[in-house]
Amino acid sequence: MKFGGTSVADVERIRNVARHVRREVEAGYDVAVVVSAMSGKTNELVAWCRDAAKLHDPREYDVVVSSGEQVTSGLLALALQNDGLPARSWQGWQVPITTSDQHGSARIAAVDGTSILEGFATRREVAVVAGFQGVHAATGRVATLGRGGSDTSAVALAAALGAERCDIYTDVDGVYTTDPRIVPRARRLDRVAFEEMLEMASLGAKVLQVRSVELAMLHRVPTYVRSSFDDPADPRPGTLICDEDDIVEHPVVTGIAFSKDEAQITLRRVADKPGVAAAIFGPLADANVNVDMIIQVVSEDGRSTDITFTVPAMDYERSRAILEDNRGAIGLTGIQGAADVVKVSAIGVGMRSHAGVASRAFRALADKGINIRAITTSEIKFSVLIDAAYTELAVRTLHSLYGLDKA
Amino acid sequence: MKFGGTSVADVERIRNVARHVRREVEAGYDVAVVVSAMSGKTNELVAWCRDAAKLHDPREYDVVVSSGEQVTSGLLALALQNDGLPARSWQGWQVPITTSDQHGSARIAAVDGTSILEGFATRREVAVVAGFQGVHAATGRVATLGRGGSDTSAVALAAALGAERCDIYTDVDGVYTTDPRIVPRARRLDRVAFEEMLEMASLGAKVLQVRSVELAMLHRVPTYVRSSFDDPADPRPGTLICDEDDIVEHPVVTGIAFSKDEAQITLRRVADKPGVAAAIFGPLADANVNVDMIIQVVSEDGRSTDITFTVPAMDYERSRAILEDNRGAIGLTGIQGAADVVKVSAIGVGMRSHAGVASRAFRALADKGINIRAITTSEIKFSVLIDAAYTELAVRTLHSLYGLDKA
Repeated sequence: MKFGGTSVADVERIRNVARHVRREVEAGYDVAVVVSAMSGKTNELVAWCRDAAKLHDPREYDVVVSSGEQVTSGLLALALQNDGLPARSWQGWQVPITTSDQHGSARIAAVDGTSILEGFATRREVAVVAGFQGVHAATGRVATLGRGGSDTSAVALAAALGAERCDIYTDVDGVYTTDPRIVPRARRLDRVAFEEMLEMASLGAKVLQVRSVELAMLHRVPTYVRSSFDDPADPRPGTLICDEDDIVEHPVVTGIAFSKDEAQITLRRVADKPGVAAAIFGPLADANVNVDMIIQVVSEDGRSTDITFTVPAMDYERSRAILEDNRGAIGLTGIQGAADVVKVSAIGVGMRSHAGVASRAFRALADKGINIRAITTSEIKFSVLIDAAYTELAVRTLHSLYGLDKA
Repeated sequence: MKFGGTSVADVERIRNVARHVRREVEAGYDVAVVVSAMSGKTNELVAWCRDAAKLHDPREYDVVVSSGEQVTSGLLALALQNDGLPARSWQGWQVPITTSDQHGSARIAAVDGTSILEGFATRREVAVVAGFQGVHAATGRVATLGRGGSDTSAVALAAALGAERCDIYTDVDGVYTTDPRIVPRARRLDRVAFEEMLEMASLGAKVLQVRSVELAMLHRVPTYVRSSFDDPADPRPGTLICDEDDIVEHPVVTGIAFSKDEAQITLRRVADKPGVAAAIFGPLADANVNVDMIIQVVSEDGRSTDITFTVPAMDYERSRAILEDNRGAIGLTGIQGAADVVKVSAIGVGMRSHAGVASRAFRALADKGINIRAITTSEIKFSVLIDAAYTELAVRTLHSLYGLDKA
């Protein structure tokens, strides 16, 4: 079971979390719980680090920031004991959860579940594990996994313990066909395949961290997304993320995702010669800009090529500057761009066995007067880049088109 | 160097602490710094523990509460790095500082200074050590030393590192002949002997924790009490706590301490037979009541005995109830008591070589109309128990009597 920051925002909510845990223990499960910091706490700690040093040593940043999860883990262990359940807290270095040395965004190297399993076996002791943190084995220093890393902690721990399920409790009651704030007719999905969830998370659905879904898929950990704000005695169902084979009926499209954090850059009349792609994308990669949706077509003049791609909106100005600096090497004549664009995507493993799924979307969007700036497709999703002003119209149009609206 | 909660209350003050450290590094010292939690933080964490569980597991309490020092240690390391000094934070489990398993009030078992000394030797790296915490070696769980334990951490670390000095930075600029809030003419002492400081701390002077003074005396660590609010570039002198032999001139009395946390209990006409003391003090000891100032005199009737003693004011009602429960076994006829009493003490190693020091005090107090309820003496101090209403008058009287007033 994993509980995020809003679920443990104060002691009263932590006591409510204890009741959710109790229900599972009474159902006969051995339970490990991963907790985040109280909501707002991590931001406060990060702000202090910024105040203390302009350029902060990520090893010290990790020491400060990881304290938030430490506090919550101790408090939840206390609340569980108060409810009569044997429980103890575990910090990353105690489990241990060993990580790489990329402090601030470390990757989990290994989770040793031995001691926790022993606590299950000998005392039926609930293990309360501080999320988001581990220890770098060689140096013995605390390392954090980066924002949202508690989801990843939970899935990695579930895999290490051979858990039947990893339940992610959050402030929504599951994964929806699209964002219900945009489309009131959005439906909660009972089941989603790992591959679909991975695309949804990558494409803007913020329910789970991409890395946690990757890990769940890799280790085949059935992961259940559900609400921590339900009555612990009578919780509503959530969404199970599972193997494709465990889902009986596959709709063609399972969900519509969208991401506003995109910007489009078009390079006109680039010399069509070997090495030009490297000249463009090499400097951007060196500057850690994540390029997406690359499209190349022959220019109007028939002798050169136009290249369009997207970058994260926060890297837009920086990317343009980098390209200007490399104008000579690239051999381009003009840079065009747009920051007010949105990427709308339809995802579904059912696309594999159906032709023409995307082309129906192109027609439906054209009928609504929505201009498509770029298209990319893969085996189980397609994405269109459109003007941000049309976001809601486009999402609703596709949501209806593929039969996702609530009855 | 050790900095308490008010000295690290916010990031601005932590940056000021970094400037104090820098001064010592520039003077050629290798420096280890022990820090407390930001002031108010520990109280907040303790309150959360109380809310989470009525009876809290001290092991989990320690996990929660120790996070305060963790935050400060990381922030100070960052601030030092920002000032261009190599620095790193150390949690208790990293040093390691191993402790007993009395969670919440653990005793330091051993401090391994090897890694910190290596940091000095190879990188001139300032070690920032989280105070108040250690790790129990057998279980690997975090243990805290109890309130004010950071002073103890600092002295133990200084001893382990073979430090030339342990500087305790606090919100006062040294040890005074008595509390300056009560006696405006109180003087800062340049030097105090370990034994004197131990008595002062035990008897109510709150500058240092008793345990830290015991440890400093045991390991002969010269300990310097000074203000963290001075200009780091030009600090005022503080008070050095050192060997008696390092003090040239010993006044008869070095300081006057007082403690309002006392209550007096008198048992009238107790049967004067063997085992009666055990019958009285056994049950109190079993209930963890710290009994002090025991005085026994023959009763008015000449056949029984009256016994007077003091207990901490917070244990007063509980102690009376325990005695009532054991009335039969003790064989007493009446219990009298007073909670509004104060213990005033005069301390000085010079008493060893001077007779009649205490009797001068009894006369001076009598001259002011102050009734003495009880007296105890030891080699280097004497204490009188009086009505709390006379506290200031008594302290001022003794302060003048022994020539401690500022010129």
